[in-house]
Amino acid sequence: MPYAIGLDFGTNSVRALLVDTADGNEITQSVYQYPTGQNGVLIDSSDHNLARQNPTDYLNGIESTVKDCIKQAKNADRNFQPEQIIGIGIDTTGSSPMPVDKNLNPLSSLEQFKDNKNAYVWLWKDHTAHAEAKEITELAKKEHPEYLAKCGGTYSSEWFFSKILHCLRTDPLVFDAAYSWLEYCDFLTAVLTGAQKSEDVKPSRCAAGHKAMFNNDWGGLPEKNFLEKLDPKLAELRERLYDRTYTSDVKAGGLCEKWAKKLDLPPQIPVAVSAFDAHLGAVGAGVGKGKLVKIIGTSTCDVTVWPNGQELPDIPGLCGIVDGSVLPGYFGLEAGQSAVGDIFNWFVNYIQPRGKELGSHEKLTEKAGKLKPGQSGLLALDWNNGNRTILVDQRLTGLLIGQTLQTKPEEIYRALIEATAFGALTIINRFEEFGVKITEVINCGGIAEKNPLIMQIYADVTGREMKISRSSQTCALGSAVAAAVSAGKNAGGYESFEDAQKAMCRIKDKTFKPIPENHNIYKKLYLLYKQLHDAFGTDTFSGKMANIMKDLLNIKDSTTAS
Amino acid sequence: MPYAIGLDFGTNSVRALLVDTADGNEITQSVYQYPTGQNGVLIDSSDHNLARQNPTDYLNGIESTVKDCIKQAKNADRNFQPEQIIGIGIDTTGSSPMPVDKNLNPLSSLEQFKDNKNAYVWLWKDHTAHAEAKEITELAKKEHPEYLAKCGGTYSSEWFFSKILHCLRTDPLVFDAAYSWLEYCDFLTAVLTGAQKSEDVKPSRCAAGHKAMFNNDWGGLPEKNFLEKLDPKLAELRERLYDRTYTSDVKAGGLCEKWAKKLDLPPQIPVAVSAFDAHLGAVGAGVGKGKLVKIIGTSTCDVTVWPNGQELPDIPGLCGIVDGSVLPGYFGLEAGQSAVGDIFNWFVNYIQPRGKELGSHEKLTEKAGKLKPGQSGLLALDWNNGNRTILVDQRLTGLLIGQTLQTKPEEIYRALIEATAFGALTIINRFEEFGVKITEVINCGGIAEKNPLIMQIYADVTGREMKISRSSQTCALGSAVAAAVSAGKNAGGYESFEDAQKAMCRIKDKTFKPIPENHNIYKKLYLLYKQLHDAFGTDTFSGKMANIMKDLLNIKDSTTAS
Repeated sequence: MPYAIGLDFGTNSVRALLVDTADGNEITQSVYQYPTGQNGVLIDSSDHNLARQNPTDYLNGIESTVKDCIKQAKNADRNFQPEQIIGIGIDTTGSSPMPVDKNLNPLSSLEQFKDNKNAYVWLWKDHTAHAEAKEITELAKKEHPEYLAKCGGTYSSEWFFSKILHCLRTDPLVFDAAYSWLEYCDFLTAVLTGAQKSEDVKPSRCAAGHKAMFNNDWGGLPEKNFLEKLDPKLAELRERLYDRTYTSDVKAGGLCEKWAKKLDLPPQIPVAVSAFDAHLGAVGAGVGKGKLVKIIGTSTCDVTVWPNGQELPDIPGLCGIVDGSVLPGYFGLEAGQSAVGDIFNWFVNYIQPRGKELGSHEKLTEKAGKLKPGQSGLLALDWNNGNRTILVDQRLTGLLIGQTLQTKPEEIYRALIEATAFGALTIINRFEEFGVKITEVINCGGIAEKNPLIMQIYADVTGREMKISRSSQTCALGSAVAAAVSAGKNAGGYESFEDAQKAMCRIKDKTFKPIPENHNIYKKLYLLYKQLHDAFGTDTFSGKMANIMKDLLNIKDSTTAS
Repeated sequence: MPYAIGLDFGTNSVRALLVDTADGNEITQSVYQYPTGQNGVLIDSSDHNLARQNPTDYLNGIESTVKDCIKQAKNADRNFQPEQIIGIGIDTTGSSPMPVDKNLNPLSSLEQFKDNKNAYVWLWKDHTAHAEAKEITELAKKEHPEYLAKCGGTYSSEWFFSKILHCLRTDPLVFDAAYSWLEYCDFLTAVLTGAQKSEDVKPSRCAAGHKAMFNNDWGGLPEKNFLEKLDPKLAELRERLYDRTYTSDVKAGGLCEKWAKKLDLPPQIPVAVSAFDAHLGAVGAGVGKGKLVKIIGTSTCDVTVWPNGQELPDIPGLCGIVDGSVLPGYFGLEAGQSAVGDIFNWFVNYIQPRGKELGSHEKLTEKAGKLKPGQSGLLALDWNNGNRTILVDQRLTGLLIGQTLQTKPEEIYRALIEATAFGALTIINRFEEFGVKITEVINCGGIAEKNPLIMQIYADVTGREMKISRSSQTCALGSAVAAAVSAGKNAGGYESFEDAQKAMCRIKDKTFKPIPENHNIYKKLYLLYKQLHDAFGTDTFSGKMANIMKDLLNIKDSTTAS
């Protein structure tokens, strides 16, 4: 029986998952918490925007988790042999670039830079480069609007070139010492395959396309002339970056001797080209044409795909549209909500910190579940952390309307859930307005698995069945799928992602179907949500608002009357 | 030394206050909790709109509290003699009408009706008559819009004719048994002065003008023809009501032998014509031309006056404009906010029930007091219980905007305080837009006395000095002022309300002056409040809203930067 290993690098830890390639069964798993900094993140008390990571943690994590998985598998099954493992796949957070020397050593591993945080991995949530992001956005708007059209219209401070430009501007010593910069997802495939020069790295299409404005339509990375206007040194760096990128069906290389020995794995088994966690997470959940995967956590990532060769307009407000970023042969379409679980956590931790008995998610969910749609008379906007899709505006904030002197915490809690559901519907509608029909919605992440009320509300609001991924580790599973595909059919893997997903990715039996009478009420409430959404979120609105409170009360009255 | 007694009938209890007429010093006071029903209110589990009261409670309350005041005064001062008491004044809640027989006996005191709640006092907060209120409003809009122009444009379910018409429609037995109906403020003066027929009662101008559409301009009560269209029996009742009303400087009569004996008071001392609590409360706080008295409790009553003979347009949105309802010779102008303390109580009791240490008014006030104006990025509308002035719309609800994932309870608490301050400013602006210049603001009620943060925010928001009434019992003090005036100068009282107020009503030394930098920020925030106010509260708005969240964030940024 062949197995594959999926490695999922999160913000605070790495997880290895040993998967049966025949049916996707998860045999063993192991987690390694990064020891460096605060929960694995190097921070700076004088700059709350700074977030860095130590690449050594990643490597120690691989060793610890893979060995542990194998050990557990051996313990569970006397017949298990590490030789049955046919490949390794990797997903990571990003954009998280790191400066490396000519031999791909992290600068942070050099004695002279070991105390300099700028020589470490610039973690996705590092926001030190906001000024540079603005500068890049403005230049692109003027000279290359097509660069932005594929990434939501704004180049983010979280992304590749913003961070590198910020390093160039603020720490030229590190910048000059760096031969090149790698997303750490590419650094990890380089390490495992023993690549020691830039040319031997097979960079991730997903990372490059979503974060570095890479697109074969315009010849790869942004043109030299564009980077030169930002800084001549950035244009020089372009030569030492990459001009080809790869999808995750491709083998980045064989597992090198050194690491094969270290991990007790067969040498030269394929290591798949890596990708970002949400994208391989979507694969693990079973993404496909017409299938939207919602990865629901503190925020959401909403991913679907669209076949290459079929016409696809730019869809305003999407975070990214990248050929091959999710599935080879498809455009990966990424949308998202800036806060979902974070909004519920805010309410519980900041507004209702009353302990398990009174103010917990469980208790509020229990009470909120007894309310009918519309019964509270409340309506909220889910913008406590801005709006990623479809408004792409971080400077939006929350709104709650309809409260009376009797409004109770569980009513607000439910209104916040409903708000995120309305936000989810707005994303689905945006896809469909531009011709991307969504026929199936698959949810994954802790909230989707653990909170049936939320899933039922999502079904009732969207009027669509909500399915849940069988795996609770879709990212690691997606990486294992990539490993199985890069290994190929002959080795016990698969020829294509479609084949692998069919065998390895399932949904749970229990799904959530819309209840018609609830959906009818939510249709009315969504019109009011959309009115608030457009009024507060767009410059084009010039309508009336006086109906909103009255309409909510009328809906409330009709609910309590029935 | 002459004294006066002020009797203040609240919703749950009656308070007697023995006052030195020379300087307004409060010598003794006594409170009697009504024993009937729930905290003095007869309720009906099958109809939450119903709220009635037992008139026997009022009479027992007079006896208990007046005797207790006298006893305490004797204990405190050996020289005190009940003969030094020169008059009695009365204020009550309202509109609270009650059916009486030909000899002014409450129907509830008759054996046949003692178990029928409709024979009792229909307390101000009884809302059983909402259908009749709508009917009266619609008829008046069509036929006599002038009737509504003086009472805010809508005839309320809380008011005199709504309640009587509802009784007529739903319990004709009680209606037919009633010779007439009295506001209980008039019933009480009738009892104390020994009046035994309708003609001997001196009805309160305040009650009649604010609640029964009484106005000498159109010959007193609404014309017979108008009432006939509502119901012929209502037109017949009109004959047995009243055609003259009186201000509280007038003596309703002398204290009758029976009650003089019962209370151990000199017979025939004057009992002043009664008025509603808020109006005599404004007198007790020192209301006058240009002086706005804000009685701040669960809701507010905002009262000022305007001299008879000086031109005064109808002011849209005011609750009432009645000649002599507050001070003789002046129009009483009444405005109000539907919820103030109730909004803070809602937040503490419903949303933050975390005990004294964390969620109390005291703790939230302490933390909210450390915030700068604008710092939270939050803005709220104070409409959790609708909007009384200037929108006169019960079907409006609350709104909170600007919350992020870091928003804390004390920030919301402060935003709610600020919202009520913006509401207060909107009322002041409305007065001034129609020529009623407000030169002084005097606050009274528990919140004004006990919460310096709220008063400072009111000063900062309105840009006006906030003064506080010296007395914490301004209603009872106002009744004592009325008693002193109705007794007259020769008896040791005063010739006019102005003279009596000058001697008896004071403000505290400590006042709250606007802090210029806070006022400047609140000026910006008020523009945003007004934008929301007009957008959600009026049909005329058709502007944009997308600026609001951004403007709040910009104000927040500038606050934290400075």
